[in-house]
Amino acid sequence: MQNILFYQDAFRAHLDAMISDKNPETLYNPIHYILKLGGKRLRPVLTLMTSEIFNCDYKKALDAALSIEVFHNFSLVHDDIMDDAPLRRGQKTVHEKWNINTGILSGDAMLILAYQLFENYEPNTFQALAKLFSKTALEVCEGQQYDIDFETREDVTIPEYLKMIEYKTAVLVGAAMKMGAIVAKASEEDQNGIYEFGKNLGLAFQLQDDYLDAFGDPKSFGKQVGGDIIENKKTFLYLKALMLTSEDEQQQLKHLFSLQPSDQTEKIEAVKDVFLSSGSAEATKQEILRYTTKAFSVLETLNISKDNQQLLKQFGEQLMNRKV
Amino acid sequence: MQNILFYQDAFRAHLDAMISDKNPETLYNPIHYILKLGGKRLRPVLTLMTSEIFNCDYKKALDAALSIEVFHNFSLVHDDIMDDAPLRRGQKTVHEKWNINTGILSGDAMLILAYQLFENYEPNTFQALAKLFSKTALEVCEGQQYDIDFETREDVTIPEYLKMIEYKTAVLVGAAMKMGAIVAKASEEDQNGIYEFGKNLGLAFQLQDDYLDAFGDPKSFGKQVGGDIIENKKTFLYLKALMLTSEDEQQQLKHLFSLQPSDQTEKIEAVKDVFLSSGSAEATKQEILRYTTKAFSVLETLNISKDNQQLLKQFGEQLMNRKV
Repeated sequence: MQNILFYQDAFRAHLDAMISDKNPETLYNPIHYILKLGGKRLRPVLTLMTSEIFNCDYKKALDAALSIEVFHNFSLVHDDIMDDAPLRRGQKTVHEKWNINTGILSGDAMLILAYQLFENYEPNTFQALAKLFSKTALEVCEGQQYDIDFETREDVTIPEYLKMIEYKTAVLVGAAMKMGAIVAKASEEDQNGIYEFGKNLGLAFQLQDDYLDAFGDPKSFGKQVGGDIIENKKTFLYLKALMLTSEDEQQQLKHLFSLQPSDQTEKIEAVKDVFLSSGSAEATKQEILRYTTKAFSVLETLNISKDNQQLLKQFGEQLMNRKV
Repeated sequence: MQNILFYQDAFRAHLDAMISDKNPETLYNPIHYILKLGGKRLRPVLTLMTSEIFNCDYKKALDAALSIEVFHNFSLVHDDIMDDAPLRRGQKTVHEKWNINTGILSGDAMLILAYQLFENYEPNTFQALAKLFSKTALEVCEGQQYDIDFETREDVTIPEYLKMIEYKTAVLVGAAMKMGAIVAKASEEDQNGIYEFGKNLGLAFQLQDDYLDAFGDPKSFGKQVGGDIIENKKTFLYLKALMLTSEDEQQQLKHLFSLQPSDQTEKIEAVKDVFLSSGSAEATKQEILRYTTKAFSVLETLNISKDNQQLLKQFGEQLMNRKV
């Protein structure tokens, strides 16, 4: 297995080669724009890595990796419309640069293009990839819908929240890795094992995102620290704090989450205090550890070399030790 | 082969059976709503009919037929957002009944569900269906984009217009029939032949829609006669009239298409006069006949019984003799 930078480069070259002049430009230019905005290409790299872990040349997995990335960007384009987001990776979102109709239609075309990228695989692999893709893509839509529904619900439970982030984020990480295993013709057991590894790591990653949004280092955290608090987002930290505190403190937290002050600093500090004093911050760290441990324990059941088990574990640890 | 009503009923029963309680309701209720709004179910009926023409039990084609209908309704949901249309089949559109975000996300889920409907077919059939589906769906997106682009272009040519309606409408009719042939395991020649039949009939059908929009009988035409003229739509009638008239009359027609009078009657009559006097109305009828004849001539090359050739021809004639 090569290192992450190697797979990132190989993936970028494959992406560039795929982008060609297609008509109408008004449909395809926005697609090329969002695909070239960059990002860490984490999901496609996982697909390539996984194919090699199961003893297959990563080159065979390039189309599957690209499909995952095209789908991920499709979901960003449509989510950005729904969230009315002006910026993505520091650049204008598609619907801001063009318009909402262009965002809808270019997104639709990307979803179809993602399926087309499986067409070079032989029929059995094609069907396995497309089935996994459809199941995952539908779960991502359901997760997005739950996320929207939760905005106006006051009775969201922690299991509901965990299901939402599992669907919206984690299943795509699992699917990215499972696709690498499918292309490598790994056994069904190994395919399902690596899916569980990816999904649990994805859950840990998303919970860590919640945690760092409140407690990350402002110097190194990429986004604005406290962003979720400003937006009154019902994250794991918030829901757990409500569970762990007294009736009085619950009311106080709910009150804080009804405010939209012009200076947010005081609100952010007050909310963080409750997250800490309630034990929610600590409980969140425990939950992250629980999912990380669950992911790592799956590794031992896989039919792969000890070296490769170690590499995947290192990769997971790198991901979870990030401060950004 | 059975008659159209039989296939319509069989299709409706299959559609009803597929609709089940799925969560989140906020995602699936809009999908069930649009799918149950009705319509003639023309495309899925064509899939079922075609499977039987190639000696296969129509029941095997029910999932493919449903996929076509789900895709068609996906495109209606997203197109209605883009066109800001309040009504669909006399009922509120999805984004009107719920909101734009629901329309986007439910539409996305429908596109995925359409692919999932192929999953019960064995891998080779699955791949053939999914490939045809992706190619067609992408063309429908491209057709919709051309249609949007043409609204603000003054130099649209007739070949460009024909390509637009081919992509936006006709290829889906061809694909609906080809899917029936794929499920029936017809030869590749027959698959391509029936696709050409459907595509050319679809083109004739769409041109007839343009014609009837101006010259249909107000008593029997389902939509408002003159609707395209009110919206200044660059239809075949309009583009052909511009081609056939003198410079003066071109300017007059372009001027009429820049007006938004409160009483549209006079404008509609004036435009229709130009369509008639220029010879555009007659040329449109000829073009419809040309595509119908092209469709029928393909029938003779198919490896199907004379009876079935005759039935498909009758079906095409019924479709083209409609006044509504």
